[in-house]
Amino acid sequence: MARFLRNREKSKGQSPGSLIFIGTPKVDTVQIRVIDYDALTLTDQETADIREISHFNDTETVTWININGLHNVEFIGKVGQIFDLHPLTLEDILNTGQRPKIEEFDSYIFITLKMVRYDADNRMVLNDQLSIVLGHLFVLTFQEQPGDVFNPVRNRLKRQKSRIRGAGTDYLAYALMDTVVDNYIHIIEGIGENIEDLEGEILTGDDTGVMENINTFKREINYLRKSIRPAKEAVNKLVRLDNDIIDENTLPFLKDLQDLTHHAAEAIETYRDLLTDQLNIYNSVMANKMNDIMKILTIFAAVFIPLTFFAGIYGTNFDYLPELHYKYSYFIFWGILIVMAVALLYFFKRKQWF
Amino acid sequence: MARFLRNREKSKGQSPGSLIFIGTPKVDTVQIRVIDYDALTLTDQETADIREISHFNDTETVTWININGLHNVEFIGKVGQIFDLHPLTLEDILNTGQRPKIEEFDSYIFITLKMVRYDADNRMVLNDQLSIVLGHLFVLTFQEQPGDVFNPVRNRLKRQKSRIRGAGTDYLAYALMDTVVDNYIHIIEGIGENIEDLEGEILTGDDTGVMENINTFKREINYLRKSIRPAKEAVNKLVRLDNDIIDENTLPFLKDLQDLTHHAAEAIETYRDLLTDQLNIYNSVMANKMNDIMKILTIFAAVFIPLTFFAGIYGTNFDYLPELHYKYSYFIFWGILIVMAVALLYFFKRKQWF
Amino acid sequence: MARFLRNREKSKGQSPGSLIFIGTPKVDTVQIRVIDYDALTLTDQETADIREISHFNDTETVTWININGLHNVEFIGKVGQIFDLHPLTLEDILNTGQRPKIEEFDSYIFITLKMVRYDADNRMVLNDQLSIVLGHLFVLTFQEQPGDVFNPVRNRLKRQKSRIRGAGTDYLAYALMDTVVDNYIHIIEGIGENIEDLEGEILTGDDTGVMENINTFKREINYLRKSIRPAKEAVNKLVRLDNDIIDENTLPFLKDLQDLTHHAAEAIETYRDLLTDQLNIYNSVMANKMNDIMKILTIFAAVFIPLTFFAGIYGTNFDYLPELHYKYSYFIFWGILIVMAVALLYFFKRKQWF
Amino acid sequence: MARFLRNREKSKGQSPGSLIFIGTPKVDTVQIRVIDYDALTLTDQETADIREISHFNDTETVTWININGLHNVEFIGKVGQIFDLHPLTLEDILNTGQRPKIEEFDSYIFITLKMVRYDADNRMVLNDQLSIVLGHLFVLTFQEQPGDVFNPVRNRLKRQKSRIRGAGTDYLAYALMDTVVDNYIHIIEGIGENIEDLEGEILTGDDTGVMENINTFKREINYLRKSIRPAKEAVNKLVRLDNDIIDENTLPFLKDLQDLTHHAAEAIETYRDLLTDQLNIYNSVMANKMNDIMKILTIFAAVFIPLTFFAGIYGTNFDYLPELHYKYSYFIFWGILIVMAVALLYFFKRKQWF
Amino acid sequence: MARFLRNREKSKGQSPGSLIFIGTPKVDTVQIRVIDYDALTLTDQETADIREISHFNDTETVTWININGLHNVEFIGKVGQIFDLHPLTLEDILNTGQRPKIEEFDSYIFITLKMVRYDADNRMVLNDQLSIVLGHLFVLTFQEQPGDVFNPVRNRLKRQKSRIRGAGTDYLAYALMDTVVDNYIHIIEGIGENIEDLEGEILTGDDTGVMENINTFKREINYLRKSIRPAKEAVNKLVRLDNDIIDENTLPFLKDLQDLTHHAAEAIETYRDLLTDQLNIYNSVMANKMNDIMKILTIFAAVFIPLTFFAGIYGTNFDYLPELHYKYSYFIFWGILIVMAVALLYFFKRKQWF
Repeated sequence: MARFLRNREKSKGQSPGSLIFIGTPKVDTVQIRVIDYDALTLTDQETADIREISHFNDTETVTWININGLHNVEFIGKVGQIFDLHPLTLEDILNTGQRPKIEEFDSYIFITLKMVRYDADNRMVLNDQLSIVLGHLFVLTFQEQPGDVFNPVRNRLKRQKSRIRGAGTDYLAYALMDTVVDNYIHIIEGIGENIEDLEGEILTGDDTGVMENINTFKREINYLRKSIRPAKEAVNKLVRLDNDIIDENTLPFLKDLQDLTHHAAEAIETYRDLLTDQLNIYNSVMANKMNDIMKILTIFAAVFIPLTFFAGIYGTNFDYLPELHYKYSYFIFWGILIVMAVALLYFFKRKQWF
Repeated sequence: MARFLRNREKSKGQSPGSLIFIGTPKVDTVQIRVIDYDALTLTDQETADIREISHFNDTETVTWININGLHNVEFIGKVGQIFDLHPLTLEDILNTGQRPKIEEFDSYIFITLKMVRYDADNRMVLNDQLSIVLGHLFVLTFQEQPGDVFNPVRNRLKRQKSRIRGAGTDYLAYALMDTVVDNYIHIIEGIGENIEDLEGEILTGDDTGVMENINTFKREINYLRKSIRPAKEAVNKLVRLDNDIIDENTLPFLKDLQDLTHHAAEAIETYRDLLTDQLNIYNSVMANKMNDIMKILTIFAAVFIPLTFFAGIYGTNFDYLPELHYKYSYFIFWGILIVMAVALLYFFKRKQWF
Repeated sequence: MARFLRNREKSKGQSPGSLIFIGTPKVDTVQIRVIDYDALTLTDQETADIREISHFNDTETVTWININGLHNVEFIGKVGQIFDLHPLTLEDILNTGQRPKIEEFDSYIFITLKMVRYDADNRMVLNDQLSIVLGHLFVLTFQEQPGDVFNPVRNRLKRQKSRIRGAGTDYLAYALMDTVVDNYIHIIEGIGENIEDLEGEILTGDDTGVMENINTFKREINYLRKSIRPAKEAVNKLVRLDNDIIDENTLPFLKDLQDLTHHAAEAIETYRDLLTDQLNIYNSVMANKMNDIMKILTIFAAVFIPLTFFAGIYGTNFDYLPELHYKYSYFIFWGILIVMAVALLYFFKRKQWF
Repeated sequence: MARFLRNREKSKGQSPGSLIFIGTPKVDTVQIRVIDYDALTLTDQETADIREISHFNDTETVTWININGLHNVEFIGKVGQIFDLHPLTLEDILNTGQRPKIEEFDSYIFITLKMVRYDADNRMVLNDQLSIVLGHLFVLTFQEQPGDVFNPVRNRLKRQKSRIRGAGTDYLAYALMDTVVDNYIHIIEGIGENIEDLEGEILTGDDTGVMENINTFKREINYLRKSIRPAKEAVNKLVRLDNDIIDENTLPFLKDLQDLTHHAAEAIETYRDLLTDQLNIYNSVMANKMNDIMKILTIFAAVFIPLTFFAGIYGTNFDYLPELHYKYSYFIFWGILIVMAVALLYFFKRKQWF
Repeated sequence: MARFLRNREKSKGQSPGSLIFIGTPKVDTVQIRVIDYDALTLTDQETADIREISHFNDTETVTWININGLHNVEFIGKVGQIFDLHPLTLEDILNTGQRPKIEEFDSYIFITLKMVRYDADNRMVLNDQLSIVLGHLFVLTFQEQPGDVFNPVRNRLKRQKSRIRGAGTDYLAYALMDTVVDNYIHIIEGIGENIEDLEGEILTGDDTGVMENINTFKREINYLRKSIRPAKEAVNKLVRLDNDIIDENTLPFLKDLQDLTHHAAEAIETYRDLLTDQLNIYNSVMANKMNDIMKILTIFAAVFIPLTFFAGIYGTNFDYLPELHYKYSYFIFWGILIVMAVALLYFFKRKQWF
């Protein structure tokens, strides 16, 4: 499967804006959780019935509807009718291969991001699609599967004095995106630590697993980048948006978020560079080791091959080979061999081979 | 043949705007298919007679004229007269090496793109030129050869309730371009899958075909890039165009298309980077294997060459060679050899060579 | 000689705008060809006498004066006086190392480009400087030497119905530049074909001339780039120029030219990338072949060196060497050798070395 | 620990703007130093009591409050109350992994930078966070630990005629930032000197420590870059800021600072390039040395292995081996060996192997 | 010493704008040369007395004061008082490590550039700082040491009819900068010629000095770049400056200068790329040669090692070794050896190893 580009196959030739789920269903049934609050009151309710949602839209309170599970196309279509979503918005919600982006529509802002998890066993970064529809009085969030990522936000919502309770839908959307981006930083940090730890192994060059590690980390960093770079663009666009859904008191927070995504994107680039440098250094270490190996081979060969030749000479069976018959020949022979060996070793020593 | 830059040879020194077909004719005769529709009625008609076209231009309905085959210069020239096309437009339609672009003229928008096919047997990406002339009441499409690419659009046209039936020429042109760009995504995904699958072979480094694969994919990805990057520029320009042919209801769809081409272009870059990384990793794997080979050679040579030398010494025929005559010489000799061999093996073991 | 930066030496410390020819004279005498035309009449005249030129300036017809040969500084100076050219324009015309550019003056637009030829024998791209002075009623072109590059334009001029006859000086200048840029495409295509053909040789890695080819093509592509990139900038600037010398009917043609230079510049980058990729692949092929060589060496050495050692053992002359005297020793000895050899070969086979 | 991305772990899921110290406490207790001055008077006072600060805010003089130690969250919170700081400002002050930036708030400008130290023993660049809150009448500086970095500024403050005494808070903030950036230049220069000194070692290729050095310097240069690049952006933003806290007389100084950060950032890039070049050259040197080693091995092997073979031939014990019995065989044998050896050496000499 | 970043050490912690000379004094005493001219009159005067300068400022003529030697801080300070220079201007004049830039002040434009020399013996580019203060009626130039660089300008000044005599201070400043930039081109050309000449040596790969040359040129090209890139920025800024010191008649000349610096910067990049390409090619050449070396070694080893083994077999002293006693054994033995050798050589020949 092409991890770096998710399948649009099913939608080929379909009418743009037609509703088709693209991806792998990750839950069995669609789950809905509705939190409705203002500064004074809060209700929190789980349901699986689409009809429960419809009347929330009328209240003056902030309504956050979180939907887990995207494979039920009909269900998503009904949500679209209730909140008057553009067909392209619905198409994007259902396409889990959608590139992160932000799009302004008449009555809402549509945001789609990737939520990222790290599967430490397979050393693999996993993606879930998160779509946020940010209206004046409602925030819809669409996730592929349930997760505890947003629990801290829910907890803050329950504290009556928290800033989030006093603010509007824009601040809620910000809080959710902040959680997602915080998670990017967290995962980059985890992988980054492993990358920085590679350095020692690289310089000794012992472990042949180093290269596999470099390869794995490079791939996963690239995979992360695919989620984070467009997210950065999207947040930049959000900050510049001149839309009355965004209150000006929320703007400093969005700028902070912009900063954070910038930080994440920069860290990604830094680690990519680091891995490239590490591979280069590793190659140099390999070349160095090769030189050392060849030096050892050459020293052994260059010292002993000539000696063996000389031994071979006096192993010949010529009838007339005068040196063989002198009394001290053998000792002179040894003497010459030793002188030759020492001379060769001295030659290599001067070349600083050892 | 230079695949990356198609021949303009024939047109050298010709008057700019003069009509010459540049490319290889891919069909024998020109085929015309005219679909004329509005929300209520639709006629679909195939013809080879240029005169059939001329009176379509008068109606208030949307007229889509698809022309397969570009080699008949005279024919294209007549089409140009009927629809009052600029000489440069005709020149671009006939030049199958034309770079994708969009150009605004007084009464129409001219769009030229590449349609892309993947020849899996030769692992080769193939290009066909598609030119679209988008007027207020007509859409002309010029293809090098017939294909079933646009059939889904035709099917949607036949469903009376589809959005496309209620919309104007701009939406039709969008639908056609969306089909082309969707196909880019599809083909990138196919090649991308193969690229991602290379990884395993690279790390073992066994198959020498890996390099050929990397080379092939890199070339084809580059070839795709040549079509997609200018297409991205063209779609960007289309979105920013302030032309009353483009209805504002179509704009969200064009933005979606812009997003999709952006996605395709980004995927191309990602796969290029991936291939570069893979080649680097492969080189490291090769260097590693080389080190292993040399270690084996060095161990064998370093252990046995000295031993052979010693054997050689006692194979000499010196008259006076005292060691030969002691009773246990031979066994002592073996002892020394074994000690030497073990010492050398211990030396290499400590160097972690095996 | 530094091909990539032509000598300004002679002008060092000279007053800017002072007239000095920089380059190698390529013709003996200056040649002038004057074509004077409007939609109805055309005169074509060759001369070497500067005085012939002066009175052409008064007519309402379009006057194209082509001058071959730049070494006659005094001559160029007189032309400058007749047409009231700025000293910097004259300096640029005379400096054959001038970077392509476009400059707007009060009464004319000054354009300087490189005309490019390919010397197939020496596989070398050659440059000639072309300067165009585009006024309301005259076009001056300055070439280093005569060539047949502009003949097609002259032929079109002679056909009374051609667009060029009905248009002004701007269209003539466009036609000339189009010829020059068309030629870029043609030459890039020629080199590109050779580059693409390298691929086969690279993967077999047999021909050591591959590297020389890669080197040559890279250098020449770089050399072309030096001419084409600034030409692209110049044409971009020309399109954006708001000058009444440029008629708005000519603008679509200039945009087409812009597109063409863009195409050329892009092809240059594509081929540069291709060459870089090819060199990388070639290096991998080399590394692969090295591994194969070393495997052969190692197999021979590792199999025969131990065998030779064993033969050496039984070649020693120890008085007491019991194995020598058993009847089947020699055959057992062979048996052991063969077992050893087979075991080693099996070891390398399992490592998939052959 | 991931040095290139500091831990936000503790803040995960926390309310944005909630006060948590992120980092390692570097001092035990918080230290406060308050310098209050105008052109005529100056008071300098150290304290650890938060209440001392509160009344400084009222005076018309410039008040510089320097706080060492960030781990006391409650303390920082109180400072925030006194000076009416935005929660995000406090969060950034407490997060020592914060990316350098500048942010404009209603009543102050918030600046955060990294102060950099070089630990020469471990050849490691160390970071401390510096946050500056620049109001109309006060400058707050928050450091992780005390240091003598700002002493020169304090000394200048004490000289009554210095420019700093006559200027406002903006000039004080400038002077502090200038000190920080000066220090960047100083540290880059120190590392740069070491990098430039590597060149000699690289070309001889003797010292295997070279690669470790290149690796270390590359890592530290990358680490510095992480601090300096965003600092450059921040200073650029500061210069463009249209805020009445910044007096126009201070602007030339800020532009000078901008220039200095630009210079630092450029030097970082230059040294990165230099290190990359050095590693490439080093790899070539290694390849060259490898060639030399292999030449020596090949010469020894190619000369002596055939000779040994010939000696082996006449060491065989064939009953009928005629050459053995001629009188001059041995000498002819030596003659042939010498001729062979000389011929082989001549062969290698002609190949310019030695 | 860090050549790529000059020492600011002495100024660390100093008040910004305080006067300290940073660099190595290159002359003993300060030399002043004053040229005062208009279209009709010219005086030229050398002096060492600061008081001589002060009254020049009053005249309506153009006054060019050239000062050689910067180490006398007090002297520079007085010049600053006379011409009312900003403290930062004086600081920049005295800091010989200052990055090239242009700064606009109330009554003058401050320009600082590097003058570049090439020390051919040490193959080293050397820098001198040039600062130009361009006022309405005066031009101050500050050099580190005397040189004959500006003599051509002085000679032109002495010719009464030259353009420079009729123009203002802006044209004089232009003429000086043009001289400096011309010199860049000249030096790049010199180094470029050497770089292009390397190509031949690289492809043969014989001379091991190639790598040292590549390294040297790369370093010096980088060093030049450090001067030229900011100079390009500065000239760009100068052209865009809207300051009444710059007459509009001078603008075409400044644009020409802009073009020239652009040309220089582009040539620098071209040569950098060329050197990178050359190093890559050189590495491939090295790898190729290594392959050749290993082939020779492998052929010798693979042919003779098995032969030696066979000779060893028949050198054993087994009592019962039947082959030794046949009459033609020795000749059969030779026959087998030759067949083996020929077979192996054929094997390598088929692999195209020789």
